[in-house]
Amino acid sequence: MTVYLVGAGPGSADLLTLRAARLLGEADVVVIDRLVDESVRACINANAEVIEVGKQPGQSGTQALINDLLVTLGLSGGTIVRLKGGDPFVFGRGFEEVLALQGASIPVEVVPGVSSALAAPAAAGIPVTHRDLSRGVVIVTGTGSGGSAVDLTALAQSGLTIVLLMGVERRAELARQLLDGGLDEGTPVAAIEWAWTDRQRVVATTLAHLATAVISSPAVLVIGAVAGYSAAEISTFAHALR
Amino acid sequence: MTVYLVGAGPGSADLLTLRAARLLGEADVVVIDRLVDESVRACINANAEVIEVGKQPGQSGTQALINDLLVTLGLSGGTIVRLKGGDPFVFGRGFEEVLALQGASIPVEVVPGVSSALAAPAAAGIPVTHRDLSRGVVIVTGTGSGGSAVDLTALAQSGLTIVLLMGVERRAELARQLLDGGLDEGTPVAAIEWAWTDRQRVVATTLAHLATAVISSPAVLVIGAVAGYSAAEISTFAHALR
Repeated sequence: MTVYLVGAGPGSADLLTLRAARLLGEADVVVIDRLVDESVRACINANAEVIEVGKQPGQSGTQALINDLLVTLGLSGGTIVRLKGGDPFVFGRGFEEVLALQGASIPVEVVPGVSSALAAPAAAGIPVTHRDLSRGVVIVTGTGSGGSAVDLTALAQSGLTIVLLMGVERRAELARQLLDGGLDEGTPVAAIEWAWTDRQRVVATTLAHLATAVISSPAVLVIGAVAGYSAAEISTFAHALR
Repeated sequence: MTVYLVGAGPGSADLLTLRAARLLGEADVVVIDRLVDESVRACINANAEVIEVGKQPGQSGTQALINDLLVTLGLSGGTIVRLKGGDPFVFGRGFEEVLALQGASIPVEVVPGVSSALAAPAAAGIPVTHRDLSRGVVIVTGTGSGGSAVDLTALAQSGLTIVLLMGVERRAELARQLLDGGLDEGTPVAAIEWAWTDRQRVVATTLAHLATAVISSPAVLVIGAVAGYSAAEISTFAHALR
């Protein structure tokens, strides 16, 4: 009786870890997010019960229901896999699920996955760090409002690459914060939609034009000098493997 | 004729991606870093030539030699895997290798890996983001000096989790910067040595005591409220799988 909190990686099934793939092959029940790619779903063994929790953005109320579901499943026994896009501990609210399970004395194991925050830029040929251009990376979400939202103004002068998850809808406001913070209008921005899937699309723009650029969710936004590398060749080659 | 720039993940071989494991099984030559775990090395097919480049910290001069080696190997044909700890684009200088190969018209593909920056905290039961405690994460290195080093003072007030890679040696100075920047002396710090390997060890301390804490390289330092979660249970369970 163990619940495994498993990262599904950024998209393509062969970016699952070996441990994740093995657990999907052994699972009795898989509780799955809506954004997990079809190719990853195909790795779940045919006898497993698959429960879609399909949380939509902003529906925070459903997290308590997911926690309850995991506890109920954990108490009933078998191998339970909670499959989350990317890595379970990077904006996945995975820790809340861990606490709920521990509160019910149910053993829980975390299996890290390749986070889209770092891998989506790579799919577009963009290194999030670079010896000359960026000494580090900041990963934040664009969701939330008022006091619960990150204020990007203070990060503008950090000199670090900024990776924004779930930031497409509020991109006008987020760009404004970064400009107010002192970032140049010409600062390169890359949006990577559906990274590491057949639907991948990269939009290259600048901070000044981010608000009006045509970008669809889900996309990872990369802001900073490194985003100026449009290594189209890498993207092409990477695609060949998918 | 392709050179694959492959992330080896944080440690344990079963945290390799399926794609990485397949490439290690097919490789004619593998060029490997010194920090890659033994269990990962065991996944390399027996007929492959393994070249250790064994770069020591601070030996930046050897990067040019590695670039030249990869170009020479790439031109000679076969399946060449450049295996790097964690993710190849997170402080791995992977992009410099990509540029060198592209400059010689050698096809190159990037295969992202699970980054130790995010997975090492998870191995200690620490979520780098948390709905109530941290709205994001900053990943920086503690290496460099003078103008090339990140100044943490400005990051102290960000309210984000700070993950420091390669920061053990300079931890006294780095802690001082964060205290000068306004972080509280009691701010929790966790050091995870050799995450996701048999040698894993977690040191829990505070910013005030970071300088004198006994920590060995390589270790990932996590600084911020989330580091106060010493979810010993998770570590124990995670260890069971190793």
